[in-house]
Amino acid sequence: MTLRVDWRVSVGLVGTILKWLWVPLSLPFALALYDGTPIVPFLLPMIGTLLVGAGLERLPDTRDLQAREAFLMVALTWLTIALVGTVPFLLAGSGTLADPVNALFESMSGITTTGATVIVDFDEHSRAIHLWRSTLQWIGGLGILVLATALLSQLSVGGAQLMETESQTQDVNKLTPRISETAGLLWKLYIGLTVLMIAVLSLLRVIGLAPEMTLFDAVAHAFTAVSTSGFSPRGNSIATFSPAVQWAVIPFMALGATSFVLLYFVLQGDFDRLRESDEFRFYAGILGVFTAAVAAVLFTDASPALTVEETIRHSLFQVVSIVTTTGYASIDFDLWSPAAKHLLFVGMFIGGMAGSTTCSIKALRWLVVIKAFRRDLFVATTPSAIRPVRLSGNVVDEETVRDIYAYTLVSLVFFILGTVFVVIDASRAQVAVTEFEAMSAVAATFFNVGPAFGIAGPLASYEPFPPSTKFAMTLLMWVGRIEIIPVLVLLTPSFWRS
Amino acid sequence: MTLRVDWRVSVGLVGTILKWLWVPLSLPFALALYDGTPIVPFLLPMIGTLLVGAGLERLPDTRDLQAREAFLMVALTWLTIALVGTVPFLLAGSGTLADPVNALFESMSGITTTGATVIVDFDEHSRAIHLWRSTLQWIGGLGILVLATALLSQLSVGGAQLMETESQTQDVNKLTPRISETAGLLWKLYIGLTVLMIAVLSLLRVIGLAPEMTLFDAVAHAFTAVSTSGFSPRGNSIATFSPAVQWAVIPFMALGATSFVLLYFVLQGDFDRLRESDEFRFYAGILGVFTAAVAAVLFTDASPALTVEETIRHSLFQVVSIVTTTGYASIDFDLWSPAAKHLLFVGMFIGGMAGSTTCSIKALRWLVVIKAFRRDLFVATTPSAIRPVRLSGNVVDEETVRDIYAYTLVSLVFFILGTVFVVIDASRAQVAVTEFEAMSAVAATFFNVGPAFGIAGPLASYEPFPPSTKFAMTLLMWVGRIEIIPVLVLLTPSFWRS
Ligand SMILES: [K+]
Ligand SMILES: [K+]
Repeated sequence: MTLRVDWRVSVGLVGTILKWLWVPLSLPFALALYDGTPIVPFLLPMIGTLLVGAGLERLPDTRDLQAREAFLMVALTWLTIALVGTVPFLLAGSGTLADPVNALFESMSGITTTGATVIVDFDEHSRAIHLWRSTLQWIGGLGILVLATALLSQLSVGGAQLMETESQTQDVNKLTPRISETAGLLWKLYIGLTVLMIAVLSLLRVIGLAPEMTLFDAVAHAFTAVSTSGFSPRGNSIATFSPAVQWAVIPFMALGATSFVLLYFVLQGDFDRLRESDEFRFYAGILGVFTAAVAAVLFTDASPALTVEETIRHSLFQVVSIVTTTGYASIDFDLWSPAAKHLLFVGMFIGGMAGSTTCSIKALRWLVVIKAFRRDLFVATTPSAIRPVRLSGNVVDEETVRDIYAYTLVSLVFFILGTVFVVIDASRAQVAVTEFEAMSAVAATFFNVGPAFGIAGPLASYEPFPPSTKFAMTLLMWVGRIEIIPVLVLLTPSFWRS
Repeated sequence: MTLRVDWRVSVGLVGTILKWLWVPLSLPFALALYDGTPIVPFLLPMIGTLLVGAGLERLPDTRDLQAREAFLMVALTWLTIALVGTVPFLLAGSGTLADPVNALFESMSGITTTGATVIVDFDEHSRAIHLWRSTLQWIGGLGILVLATALLSQLSVGGAQLMETESQTQDVNKLTPRISETAGLLWKLYIGLTVLMIAVLSLLRVIGLAPEMTLFDAVAHAFTAVSTSGFSPRGNSIATFSPAVQWAVIPFMALGATSFVLLYFVLQGDFDRLRESDEFRFYAGILGVFTAAVAAVLFTDASPALTVEETIRHSLFQVVSIVTTTGYASIDFDLWSPAAKHLLFVGMFIGGMAGSTTCSIKALRWLVVIKAFRRDLFVATTPSAIRPVRLSGNVVDEETVRDIYAYTLVSLVFFILGTVFVVIDASRAQVAVTEFEAMSAVAATFFNVGPAFGIAGPLASYEPFPPSTKFAMTLLMWVGRIEIIPVLVLLTPSFWRS
C-alpha cells in the first residue's frame, strides 16, 4: 500500500523553514546577552533547528509540491514552529510558562498571532523571553502574508477562489507576474510598517508624550501590532501607556489588517484603489459602525465614568483591536456592560481584509455572503433572472460563492463545537466557567483574537483553565490560523490512501 | 407605476383562511360557555374574522398564485392570525396579557408554535384563555405542515430544493400525485396523533398514574406536544405531572418532529423506510448523543441530587423537548450546571426532521451541510474528482447544496444580529440581561423553541424584557417560523417594483 501524499516533500520544506529559525531566535538571544539573562534557552534551539532543519531538507523529494503536499506542509509548519517556540519557555523555566501545556499554549498563541496568554505575573519573565513572544508573533504575521499570497490561494475550499477573486480585483497578477516577487514586495511593506511604528512610538517618548515607552516596548509592540497579534510584555497591555500612545497604536492595527496589496497601490499614489475596493469600504464601514455602537452604549451606561475623549478613544481602540483580531486592551473592557462586551464579542467573528495579517472569517467573505444572499433573494422572486455576484465590479463565480458560504458556516460550526468541549471539560475539571466565558474564550482562540471575557479577560490569563482545555484551545488556534481546511483534509482517509 | 406583486391574490387567500378562524375559536368559546367565564373575548373575533374574511375573499384576483404572491400570502397569514389571536387576550383583560405588546407576543408565540410566554401568574387566566393559547399552537402546527408540503416546497431559497429532495427521497409524488391529497393525509395523521395522546394521558389518569392530569390538561398538552409548540396551562409545565406522564410525553414530542410522510409509510407497515432514511437516522442519532452527553454531565455534577431514573428521564425529556423545539420542562433545567445548559442551548440550533411541525434549522439541512462539506474536503485534495452529494441514495443537486449552506449560515447570522439588538435594547432600558441570557432568549424565540435561560428560563417569563425587546422577539418568532425568506423578500425593492 502506497501513500497518496508524498510526505517527504512536505517535511523537506518544513526543514528549510526550520533551518532559518535561528534568525528570529537571534533577537532574544542578543537581548539576553545584553541584559545578562540566560542565553542557553535561545542558543540551544538556534543550533538544534539549524541541524535538524538542514537534515530534513535533504529528504529525497520525488514529486512536485501539489495540493496534498502543500496542505501537509502548512499544517506541519505551524505545528513545528509552535513546538520549537516552547523550548525557550521551558529552558528558562520561569513562572507559569515552565509548565509544558502552558508553554505550548503560549508558543502556539505566538506563532498563530493569537495573543492569548497564560502568563500570570509578567515581571517573572526576562525581557528576552518577552521579546521571543513578540518575535514569534512577528514571524507568524509574516508567515501568514506569504501563505496568503503564495499558497493558501491555491488550497483551501473557501480560500482558493477567494484569493483568486482578490487577485482579480486588485490585479496582483498584473502587478507582478511571479508570486515570489509579490511576496517580496509584501515583506518589504511589512518590515517598513514595523520600522515606522517603532519610530513613531520612540518619537512620542522623545517629545515627552509617552513616559512609559522604552525602546524595548516600542519594538515589542511594533512586532505585535503590525502582525495584528496582541502580545504585550506589559500585564496591562496598552492600558499601561499614555493616551497619545493609544491613539498612535490604532492606525497600525488597522493597517495590519488592511490588504497589503491595496496598501502597496496606495503607496504608489493610487488612492482610487481605496474607493474602488468594495472590501475596503466594507471593512472601514464595519469599524465605523461598531465604534459608534460601542461609544453609544458607553455613553448610555455612564459607568465607568469616562470623559468624551476617553469614551471615543477606548471605543475606537477596542473595536479596531478586536475586529482586526489584534487583541490589545487600552482599558479593562471586561468591566464594561453586557451590551458593550457583546458588541466586541460579535466583532471577533468578523476580522479585517483578506491578504493581510488578520485572522477570523475576514471582511471579504462576509461581503461575498451578503452580496450573494441578496442576489439569492432577488432570484427567489424572479426565478427566470440570472444575476451574478459582483465584487469591485468583477463577477464572482458560483463555485466560489458556494465555497465561501461553506467556509463561513463551517467556521461558525467549529466555534459552536469548541464551546461545547470547553464548557463540558471545565465542568468535568470543576473549574467554574460560564457559558459566555466559554464562548468568548473559544472565539478568542479559534479566531486568533487573544483576550476573552471573564476568566480570560483582557488583563487576566488563560492559566486557570484546565490543562485539557488549554490543549484543546492550542489546537483551535492552530486550526483557525491556517483556515481550517489544511487540518481537516489531514483527517480524511482519502488524503492518505486511494 | 404598477406593482409587480398582485397583492389582491395574496390578501384574498388570507381572507379565506380568516373566514375559517371561527372553527378553532369555537373551542375556547365552548369551554368558556361551559365554565361560565366570559364568552365575548371569543365570540367577537369569531364574528369579526368571518365577516372580514368573507369580504377579503371577494377581492378580484387577476393572476394565479405565483412565487411573489405566495411569499406575501405566507408572511401575511402568520401576521394576521397573530393579530387576531390577541383579541381574546385583550378582551379578557386579565394578568399580563392585558398589555397589547404582551398580547401580541403571546399570540405570535402561539401561532408560530414557539411557546415562549409572558404570563407571570398562570392562575389569573381562565381555562378558556389557556385553551386558546393551546389551540393557536395546534393550528400553527397544522398550518406549517400544510405550508411544508404545499407551498414552502415551491418557495424559499433553502426550502424549495430541500423539500424537492425530501419528496424525491420519500416518493411523496408516487404516493399521491396531487399536493392537496398529500396534505389531506398529513392532516389526518396529525389529528390521529393528537387524539392518541389525549387518550394516553387520560388512560394514565384512569389507572392512577397521573393524579394531576385532568381532561383539560390532556387536551391542552396534546395540542402543544404534537405541534412541538410547548405552551402549558401550568406554570410548572410538565414538571407538574408524574414521571409516568413525563415518559408518556417524550414519544409524542419526538413524533411531532418526525417527517409526517415517513410516519405515514411506517403506519402502512413499511418499516424499512426508517432504516433507509439518512435524515431519520441522523435525527435519532442527535437525540441519542445529546441525551447521553447531558446525562453524563448531570451524573458528574451530582447536584441537584437526582436518582439514576430521574437523571435519565430529565436528560431524555429535556433533550427531546429542546431538539424537537417543543420547549416543555420536566424540571427547572435553568438550575443545571453551565455545561448541561450549554448543551441544551446548542440543541436549539438543530431542530427535528423536515416535513414535520418542528422549527429551527432542521436535521435535513445539517445533514446536507455535513455531507457536502465532507465532499468539499475530498475534492480539495483530489481536484479532478467529481463526487455528488447523496441523501438516502439520491443525488442532491449543487444549487440545492449552495442554497442549504446559505440558509443555514443566514439563520446563524440572523441569530447573532438578534442578540446584538436584544442586549443593546435591554441595556438602554436598564433591564439587567447577561450576554448568555440574551443569546438564549433570541435562539429560543427565533428558532421557535420557547423557554430560554435565566431571566426567561423554563419556569420563568419573558414579561420582564422591555416592550421594545418583546416586540423585536415577536418579529423574530414570525421570521423564524416561516423560514426567513418570505419576510426578507418583502424587504427587497425588486419584490415590489421592476
Ligand atoms: K490576535
Ligand atoms: K416550541
